[in-house]
This record gives sequence, C-alpha cells and structure tokens, in this order.
Amino acid sequence: MSSKPFNPAATIKDVAAQAGVSVMTVSNVLRGRGRVSEETRKRVLETAERQGYRPNLTARALVEGKAPTLALMLSCITNPFYPEFALAANLEALRHERHLLVCNTDHEPDGGSGFLEQVAGSLSDGVLVANNGDLPMDELLRLQERGIPVVISVWELPDDLPDIPCVTFDSKAAGKLAVEHLVELGHRRIGAIIGSPKHGIHGGRYAGFRDVMRAAKIKPSAADERFTKDSFEHGYEAGKDLLSARPDLTAIFVSNDLPALGVMNAASDLGYSVPDDLSIVSITDIIPARQSRPGLTTVAIPTAEMAEKGVSLLVELMAGRATESTVVHTSPPTLVVRGSTAAPAASR
Amino acid sequence: MSSKPFNPAATIKDVAAQAGVSVMTVSNVLRGRGRVSEETRKRVLETAERQGYRPNLTARALVEGKAPTLALMLSCITNPFYPEFALAANLEALRHERHLLVCNTDHEPDGGSGFLEQVAGSLSDGVLVANNGDLPMDELLRLQERGIPVVISVWELPDDLPDIPCVTFDSKAAGKLAVEHLVELGHRRIGAIIGSPKHGIHGGRYAGFRDVMRAAKIKPSAADERFTKDSFEHGYEAGKDLLSARPDLTAIFVSNDLPALGVMNAASDLGYSVPDDLSIVSITDIIPARQSRPGLTTVAIPTAEMAEKGVSLLVELMAGRATESTVVHTSPPTLVVRGSTAAPAASR
Repeated sequence: MSSKPFNPAATIKDVAAQAGVSVMTVSNVLRGRGRVSEETRKRVLETAERQGYRPNLTARALVEGKAPTLALMLSCITNPFYPEFALAANLEALRHERHLLVCNTDHEPDGGSGFLEQVAGSLSDGVLVANNGDLPMDELLRLQERGIPVVISVWELPDDLPDIPCVTFDSKAAGKLAVEHLVELGHRRIGAIIGSPKHGIHGGRYAGFRDVMRAAKIKPSAADERFTKDSFEHGYEAGKDLLSARPDLTAIFVSNDLPALGVMNAASDLGYSVPDDLSIVSITDIIPARQSRPGLTTVAIPTAEMAEKGVSLLVELMAGRATESTVVHTSPPTLVVRGSTAAPAASR
Repeated sequence: MSSKPFNPAATIKDVAAQAGVSVMTVSNVLRGRGRVSEETRKRVLETAERQGYRPNLTARALVEGKAPTLALMLSCITNPFYPEFALAANLEALRHERHLLVCNTDHEPDGGSGFLEQVAGSLSDGVLVANNGDLPMDELLRLQERGIPVVISVWELPDDLPDIPCVTFDSKAAGKLAVEHLVELGHRRIGAIIGSPKHGIHGGRYAGFRDVMRAAKIKPSAADERFTKDSFEHGYEAGKDLLSARPDLTAIFVSNDLPALGVMNAASDLGYSVPDDLSIVSITDIIPARQSRPGLTTVAIPTAEMAEKGVSLLVELMAGRATESTVVHTSPPTLVVRGSTAAPAASR
C-alpha cells in the first residue's frame, strides 16, 4: 500500500533544512496559516511526506478539513483478543498519520448502531469493524451507501463474503490444523467445545473439526460436543459439563483460546492432569495462551496482521484505491505446540 | 450524583403515553425539529428523563449542539487492568447517555499530547485520564485552562494531589495490607518486586511495603528488592533474577498483579512450588489473578468504582457541580486470599 511509513525520528527541523525554508514556514504550511506561496507549500508537504515526518495531526486536520481519526468498533474489550487487535490497529493507524478511536459496543442498548452512527463520518472518517457480527449488517451497508468508508476485519467465512470490503481468514483451515494435531498424536476420543452456536461466529472452526473427524473415520457424537459462549467462564462450565458426562475423552478441541483456558481450569478442578490425562487444543494464540501453565497448544491466527491489513484497507478505500468488493486475505494459520497436548495415556 | 440512570427498557412509546403526546412529537422534541410549544417540549424532556429513556445520542447531540462522547485516555490497552477499567467507564458513560471513546496513548510519538488535543473539546466534550502519568501534566492543565473538562482517575497519591479534579486511591494502604498478610503468616524473608521506579507510579505501594517491614522490625535490604516495569515479562525477568540471587526468600510482594503473574511463572520455572516453597502477594485483582492456578492472593482495588466515579465526576464537572479542586475517594482496598500464599515451610 502506498502511504509512506511514519518515521518518529524525523523532526520539523529536518523538513525545514531539506526544503530550504525556515521552521516557521514548515509550521505555517502544516497549520495552514501565514502567507506561503503554493510552490513552497507543495515542496514542504512533499518533503515532510518523503521524510515520514508526522506533523501534529490536529493541525493537519485543520489543513485537510477532516478528522484525522479512524474508529475501531469492537465487542467485549475485556476479551484479550480485542486489546491485542486494537493495539496493532492503533500502531498501523499511526503509520498512516491517524489516531484510532476504540469503540466498545457489546453493552450498547441498540447493539452499537447509535454509536456507529455517531462516530462514522463525523468523529472519524472511516470505520473498521472487528466485532464478530454484533453490529447489524444492514447498518454497515447503509453507512457504505452514504459514502462512509467501512471495512470488516476479520471475516471468518471466505466462502460467504459480505458486500463490504473485508479482511478474511480461513477459519476452517484453523479448525482442521488443531484437530489434525490431536489425531496425529493418536487421539480418537475427541470432544469439542465451540464458543458460538453451530452456525455462529465459530461455525467455520467447527466445520474444520468435523472435516478432520470424518477423514479420520471417527464417528462424531453430539454427546461429545458443547456449544456455548466465547468467554473464560462459559468454557469453564462447558468443560466441567462435558468432562463429567464423558470422562473417557482423551482430548478436547476448543474453538477459541479464552474458553480453552477455562476448560484447562475445569480439567484441573476435576483432577485431570493436562496433558497426561487430557489434551486441550484451541485457536487464536492470545497472550494468556503462552502465559498459562502448561502453555496452551493452539493454532495461531495472525491477529496483528488482521488489524494492520484492516487499517490499510480502510485507508486505501478512503483514497479510492479499493472498492466495496475488495477482499484481502491473511496469512494462513499455524500450529503452536505447547504443553497442553500429548499422546493419549493408553498409547504411551 | 444527580443524573438519572439509563433504563434500556424504556421506549419512545412509553414517553409519548406518559407525556400525553404522539410518538412523532417526542421524536420532534428529541431531534429538535418540527413545531412544538416550549411547554410541551419541557414536558417531553422531563418525562424522558424520569423514565430513563435514552434517545438516539446523535439526535440528542444535534439538539444540544455538543458531542455526546467522553474520551478515556489510557496507556497500554493490552494490560488487562485497562480494558476492565474501560468497560466500567463505558457502562457508566452510557448511564449518563454518552458514548465512550477509548484512546490508547502508550505508542503515540508525542506521548499522547497530540491525541489529547485532538479529542478534547472537539471529538469529545470531556476527558477522563487513566494513564498513569504518561500524559504530560502541563498538557492537562492547559486544557483545563481552556475550559475543557478533565478528570484524572485514578490518582494513587492522596497526600500529593494534582490541580485537576481526581479520583484518589490510598495505594500505601494497599501495600500495607498485602505485606501485613505475609507477616501475619509468619514470613520474615520477604522480597519486593516493584513495577516502577522507587518514586514512580507504584511509589505509594512500595512505601506501604516499607512501613510494614519497619513495623515488623525486619531489616530491609536493597538486595531483596527489584524495581522494574509494569508488565508480565518484566515481572518474570525480575522474579528469576531475584529468586536466583536470594533463594532463601520465603515470600515476595509484587506491586501489581500483571508482573506478579510473571513472578508466579518464574518461580514455577525455577522449580519452586507456590505457595509451599514461596508465597506471592500482589495488588489490583485483575481478572487473570483469579484465573491463574494457584489463584493469586492480592489486594483488590475497586477498579470498576474508580472508573464509575471518574466518569461521574467528569459529568458533574461539565454540569458545573464540581470544581478543579474536587477530590473523590474510592472505597478502601481489601485483601483477597487465594492459593498463592501460605505460612513459610519452616513454620509448618
């Protein structure tokens, strides 16, 4: 993408020296005041751009007449995935000389529509939507029809794209990688805890699980599956429930790290030793996955890349270099083996 | 504080029925359009207020001519304390019929000044600062002088107040509670890992540690103390360093939960069993403190209350019902005993 990277080392003095003008002139140009010839103005702006100098964004906004902010709409700010995503989006926005407004929508009484309406096109001039389908799609389409740039990142179902530019991720491939790891270790009695309804946000991940089970000729049983919500506590409860009902499981696939960490605690509280008695594998690789003991084996999805590509696509869209049907793919997911998985006890 | 709580169950129909007017009239009043008598206008607004009806905030903003948002400036969005604080602030802002813009400043090239300048008074009409002194105090004072409402929450040093309205917290009392717990269990060889310089943001917590050590007649030794940064990784490294240098310690006081969780892993990696070989106590009670195994014994600070009181104070300030010298105190901290502390092995 073509915007110049922001260079924090560049100073207004460097720009002045390079452009052959005074610091005051650079300041006047960037703030849109004082008397400066059009030729000088252009030279100063080009020099600043070339050096990656980041002027005061507020001053820049005055010059350009627009809000130098992008908005990130997310749900559940206390789910560690979102702060990690937000930080990466924040840094990418800064590289494009924009501040990022983080908007948490999961407790908005209207599902976030009012908040979206407020920020889009007034407080910010572009919106990155990262909140797992909580925001009504028709609201997003309506904004787009009004000419307000909207991008979705990440969209988990590349076979069923929205009519909004998006960054997609092959969630089915992630589910497959996780469960193939269990099958390769020798597990046959594999349960599943999914952090959404069967056809909800983790539907692609669940489909990957089913594909691998079928390929391994393991007869799936609804009794070995639980559909719950995407939180630590819901994972904990579903883990206790599943392990109490099916104590002969040797491994559990959990569709997301946060509920998987809850399942780890449930197993521990029921007297299971992970991974000796039970293997647990998941998807995402949030920071707590590497901090838990044992560490959580998981399929890493490129969280920072999703955020960065989402912001870049939004900037491209605002510049007219992307369209409503632009789709950007992320790198494929990768398995990260830690301490929570091992061969089943019977095979050791 | 006097704003009515938001009632998500209230509808525009309820307001219309109660005020004895049509739904269209309520809509016209709330959107500031159509011809409505001043008497009817007042009655509709009062009815909506009484019922806790939340009109579309954007429409409300058009009527009142101001941005219906508050900004929360925070540092380090990936430190779990801040998302928890942000969520509580978000909910309290909604109760005051305002959206919350979350602004992460720790990677802003100018320390956040430019971002603050951008949001304060334009994108939002009030700023809650929760970022541990990263934002230059003179910038905050300058905004205040320009009449832009600014509140700090939380301010950890109640004996040394800023010239800005704030919510304070007795950090020294928290440090004392934590270390008294260790002394009462019988520990004498107590180390300290502080997530800031000696007189930095955790200076009050460290002072509490020193007070208790002095009262217990335990000679403090600089060799038993480490000053580091407030992150999981810095806690891990400081823990490894301290335990390697002082293997006879039976307990460690850590000034904050996030580095304390790193110390737990460092102890585990060095072969210590917590709490059998080593007790660890900390301050804050972030969500991961209760999710770790063993659970982290910690002094709970009222995080949600700090956020709620911060937002309420900001709203009061904007309404002219608080001044630049208003100070709001939070509830005292409380000890939460979990699995990471026990009597030292020698005394069992």
